[in-house]
Amino acid sequence: MISHAENELLCRVGPATQMGDLMRRYWVPAVYPPDLPSPDCAPIRVRLFGENLVAFRDSAGKPGLIKESCPHRGASLFFGRNEEAGLRCVYHGWKFDTAGNCVDMPNEPAESDFKAKVKATTYPCIERSGIIWAYLGPPSEQPKELPGFMSNLLPDDHVFVTVRVQQSNYLQALEGGYDSTHVGFLHSRLDAPADARDSRQLMMQDKRPRFAAVQTDFGVMIGARRETGSDQAYWRVNLFLMPFYHMSPGTPVGLQRWNAWVPIDDETTLRWVVAWQADRPISEADLAPLRHGDSPAWGLLTADDYAPSNTLPGGRWRTKANLANDYFIDRTVQRTKTFTGISGFLTQDQAVTESMGPLVDRQHERLGSADLGIIAARRRLSQAARALRSDGTPPVGVLTPEAYTVNSGSVMLPRDADWVAGVQDVVVLRAQSSQS
Amino acid sequence: MISHAENELLCRVGPATQMGDLMRRYWVPAVYPPDLPSPDCAPIRVRLFGENLVAFRDSAGKPGLIKESCPHRGASLFFGRNEEAGLRCVYHGWKFDTAGNCVDMPNEPAESDFKAKVKATTYPCIERSGIIWAYLGPPSEQPKELPGFMSNLLPDDHVFVTVRVQQSNYLQALEGGYDSTHVGFLHSRLDAPADARDSRQLMMQDKRPRFAAVQTDFGVMIGARRETGSDQAYWRVNLFLMPFYHMSPGTPVGLQRWNAWVPIDDETTLRWVVAWQADRPISEADLAPLRHGDSPAWGLLTADDYAPSNTLPGGRWRTKANLANDYFIDRTVQRTKTFTGISGFLTQDQAVTESMGPLVDRQHERLGSADLGIIAARRRLSQAARALRSDGTPPVGVLTPEAYTVNSGSVMLPRDADWVAGVQDVVVLRAQSSQS
Amino acid sequence: MISHAENELLCRVGPATQMGDLMRRYWVPAVYPPDLPSPDCAPIRVRLFGENLVAFRDSAGKPGLIKESCPHRGASLFFGRNEEAGLRCVYHGWKFDTAGNCVDMPNEPAESDFKAKVKATTYPCIERSGIIWAYLGPPSEQPKELPGFMSNLLPDDHVFVTVRVQQSNYLQALEGGYDSTHVGFLHSRLDAPADARDSRQLMMQDKRPRFAAVQTDFGVMIGARRETGSDQAYWRVNLFLMPFYHMSPGTPVGLQRWNAWVPIDDETTLRWVVAWQADRPISEADLAPLRHGDSPAWGLLTADDYAPSNTLPGGRWRTKANLANDYFIDRTVQRTKTFTGISGFLTQDQAVTESMGPLVDRQHERLGSADLGIIAARRRLSQAARALRSDGTPPVGVLTPEAYTVNSGSVMLPRDADWVAGVQDVVVLRAQSSQS
Repeated sequence: MISHAENELLCRVGPATQMGDLMRRYWVPAVYPPDLPSPDCAPIRVRLFGENLVAFRDSAGKPGLIKESCPHRGASLFFGRNEEAGLRCVYHGWKFDTAGNCVDMPNEPAESDFKAKVKATTYPCIERSGIIWAYLGPPSEQPKELPGFMSNLLPDDHVFVTVRVQQSNYLQALEGGYDSTHVGFLHSRLDAPADARDSRQLMMQDKRPRFAAVQTDFGVMIGARRETGSDQAYWRVNLFLMPFYHMSPGTPVGLQRWNAWVPIDDETTLRWVVAWQADRPISEADLAPLRHGDSPAWGLLTADDYAPSNTLPGGRWRTKANLANDYFIDRTVQRTKTFTGISGFLTQDQAVTESMGPLVDRQHERLGSADLGIIAARRRLSQAARALRSDGTPPVGVLTPEAYTVNSGSVMLPRDADWVAGVQDVVVLRAQSSQS
Repeated sequence: MISHAENELLCRVGPATQMGDLMRRYWVPAVYPPDLPSPDCAPIRVRLFGENLVAFRDSAGKPGLIKESCPHRGASLFFGRNEEAGLRCVYHGWKFDTAGNCVDMPNEPAESDFKAKVKATTYPCIERSGIIWAYLGPPSEQPKELPGFMSNLLPDDHVFVTVRVQQSNYLQALEGGYDSTHVGFLHSRLDAPADARDSRQLMMQDKRPRFAAVQTDFGVMIGARRETGSDQAYWRVNLFLMPFYHMSPGTPVGLQRWNAWVPIDDETTLRWVVAWQADRPISEADLAPLRHGDSPAWGLLTADDYAPSNTLPGGRWRTKANLANDYFIDRTVQRTKTFTGISGFLTQDQAVTESMGPLVDRQHERLGSADLGIIAARRRLSQAARALRSDGTPPVGVLTPEAYTVNSGSVMLPRDADWVAGVQDVVVLRAQSSQS
Repeated sequence: MISHAENELLCRVGPATQMGDLMRRYWVPAVYPPDLPSPDCAPIRVRLFGENLVAFRDSAGKPGLIKESCPHRGASLFFGRNEEAGLRCVYHGWKFDTAGNCVDMPNEPAESDFKAKVKATTYPCIERSGIIWAYLGPPSEQPKELPGFMSNLLPDDHVFVTVRVQQSNYLQALEGGYDSTHVGFLHSRLDAPADARDSRQLMMQDKRPRFAAVQTDFGVMIGARRETGSDQAYWRVNLFLMPFYHMSPGTPVGLQRWNAWVPIDDETTLRWVVAWQADRPISEADLAPLRHGDSPAWGLLTADDYAPSNTLPGGRWRTKANLANDYFIDRTVQRTKTFTGISGFLTQDQAVTESMGPLVDRQHERLGSADLGIIAARRRLSQAARALRSDGTPPVGVLTPEAYTVNSGSVMLPRDADWVAGVQDVVVLRAQSSQS
């Protein structure tokens, strides 16, 4: 339903692309902190928006993100020595700090030393609540604050973060987030569990919700209205937050969460799931129900569920269940127990969105009313990318971190109520946050 | 010996290519029935002429062939639920029957349901005698009947079918079929077996036959004449049948057979071998001599001889012996027992034709008189493709299924006899079949 | 520091490229003799300058190098029968001798036999002192003699040759050869070994040498001058010899050596190390100190150190430690014992030069005074390639094999001495060799 050119605009995120330039205006989740466990630990390879980088943590524990190829002759800084406040190339010993300054050039005589003139490309990093964020845009445009996600406002131990690599373009994965009706199919069981909670009962009762979407100061708010058989309607709110975030109503247990699909390159994405609770630290008891189960559990992963690959970008976080093995689909289970025969909510999402191919062609789609939110989000993204390119308009949310202090949720409202007003208390977590 | 452009015309079979369009005018072997063992069994991925499809068998046992990507948003129907007379996408539950009708759209409210407007691309299928045939061309041009191969006129149990994937373009593999002189080399033994049959003795006695070729209503009939040391000449007849079939004189045992090399895409092909006998069912005793032996056995395969790959198209039928392991060539055997050191007739064929590369460049060939049939078949193919493109001329055989009711064979003829007349009784199995 | 176009000129070596044409004017190391252990042994695949070839050794022990695809219809001669003074294609039995003559065409009748008109592409080979050399250029320009490396003037048992595949363009690997300052870093230990020899002590004492380079009749001579704290300067001489050779001052033990990085294709290279001593055969005792140690040993390999790959060109000689496994880098060793944590001098070289990517982009380099020799060698290569293309000027060294009778070495010279004159006795091994 969109042209090839529009699809390219939306999907291509490499250097100098419109969408890549847009995304580089935001602080983005860049490095998963467990990959850099301690000061002066081994550096790791990171690819973001098609650019090859190396992440390291210096002697003071400060994270750095530096272009992979050494400015001198291009050897990979991945093999570098991480020592005494900088990363030293093993080829000729040139050393760089987290700001990209060349702080040592030990193979040149004093009279020809030109380290003051050499600067490596680096990007500023901020570590907060389980994520190392980075800013890859023009230095003069760097936003002062991280997006105001609740998780960024809470102590670290109130937040729990996981990642997994997605072998597809970011957009088709992201669209699986605020695509509300798939939950009643993709993630459903054939046998209704006896302990199904109210919200699931309400969702399963009406699998054909009606949708509405409004533009907001963070992106798009999407409402799905379900009939309940009474004079009340059940509204569930999904949020698309620029440029690649999503929130949907909470988990069966008490945790809230948001998702990010951060482009590694055009055909690979790192999916982040950030869970948080406002009132107390997250305990293993909070997480247990989210592990492994088919449904309604998310299928959170343990180390044993990953099959690291050194050749796939982001391959440290490749899941064992992946496209090459059809996600271990069990056709008997599919016939008798679950809709897909694939284990785990997140893996089910991954399966359908990766199965579209590395970068889906949207020319032949047949979108319906259930895709209203998807259409609105695409428009928001492409308009913002065009506005940035044509006259430098800063993308929405970049200058207003408080816009991200929101949440998804669900409410019962009178049948004729204004849903946007009705969900305000649930969605907006800070007084200063407002709709545009 | 042919230009790059002519080679491209002959070899490229994807959507909108001239040769692809030609092939899509025929009913073609599309799915190996053991891959769809029962009603509502798991769907499988199929690629044909470069197009990604999913094959399934509905609740009534009817085979279906549907475009892989769901018309809605592109999720793969391979993960679909095959149930109650249709294939249901696991993403949002849209369901399609074998005719491509959207028979359920369960995520849309009644007022916005548009299933009547949605049609998936599907192709008609007919299952007969061990093959699921499909027609991928324009609906208005669909031939009424399958090609009249003898196997299609016999009960199922008179026919035995095997498949294997070939990692090359179809044409170089197909040309190995009616390339008669290679038999005396590629498939030969260094030690003449004591029990060699007459036909092999005659072939080995004169490894330099003389060739003739005539155009027919199915394609090209190629005669190879060998001297016998008497006043009789030994004629063997190979048939090229449009667009990718071949018949050569029968096996050492009583079975007759035909071969098809059906393009999966430009660089991958599914080789079909269809064996039949007219007078009685094929028993395991009939097949035993064809299994595994170096020569004269074909080297028919058992399940143990395949090494399925989930990434290679058609990879369910990849043989363990393949190019990546040099077909387990044994150089000692090659020095002492067989001409190649590679086990199995069909693997020997596969080895030499795959070794040319994925799509051989024919600009630098040096063809001889032994290649007469190959030259004639290429001309037939390219002329037909051009005629179809230029003025819509239906390719030969499409409208005359009885033209395929033929067989290859060999005869002894007086030295000066007209070979074409002389082989008629052997080749033409139906009275109504005639040469053009 | 060089333009994209200049980089392409320097790096691309396939058929009809300027640099490929230049290299084809030289006799080059082509086949490692242990790959062809005996007369009529199995043929092997060889790729050189992007051209697919098969090497074999005929019944008389003479090596042959023939285009892989059979002139007839393109089957790979790799599967050929190597027998009775020629290589016979297994498809139809055509047979070729090492000169490319078609000496048998057994599938054609006498009257249509055209073997006299068929010639396979072959390249002349000369086997000497552990290397099969080949000439791939125009026959009329074939140099009469091999380059006069000392190893080519000595008995076979005075020479020891090893190979390994490098997964990158030749030039970035070659440049690691005459890049003198990297030795003090890449190959260094954190713990100075008690038995360090004088030359290493001198090198480690001044890691910031000053460089000078002069053009010679073999390529470029590069001098690195180190201060010693006395009135003597320590000069080490590296040689770049056209088109892809390198010599650096000898090993810790008595062996001398030279290196070649011969392009397999644009992104794969075969690294040759040729060790020699003039006065006596090389014994295992001579080699022992060069095996496996971290430093100062080279890390010579045994059969157990290779992980042959049938899909990588030149993959017979792929090392177990390679980019896909980060060369088994041990970060603890890197922190505590050696500069890289990677074992073996040659693997350390391979790691940094492969880590630049398959073909490094040199547009953003920041070269210093330590890169003087690299700059001079690039200029020499590109000027020679341009001169050959524009007016057919034969490249330097092609017509003067004696220019290669040189060696690298090191000397102590008075601080103000002319280094070029001062190193003559060390570098020039033959009276007739002279500087241009």
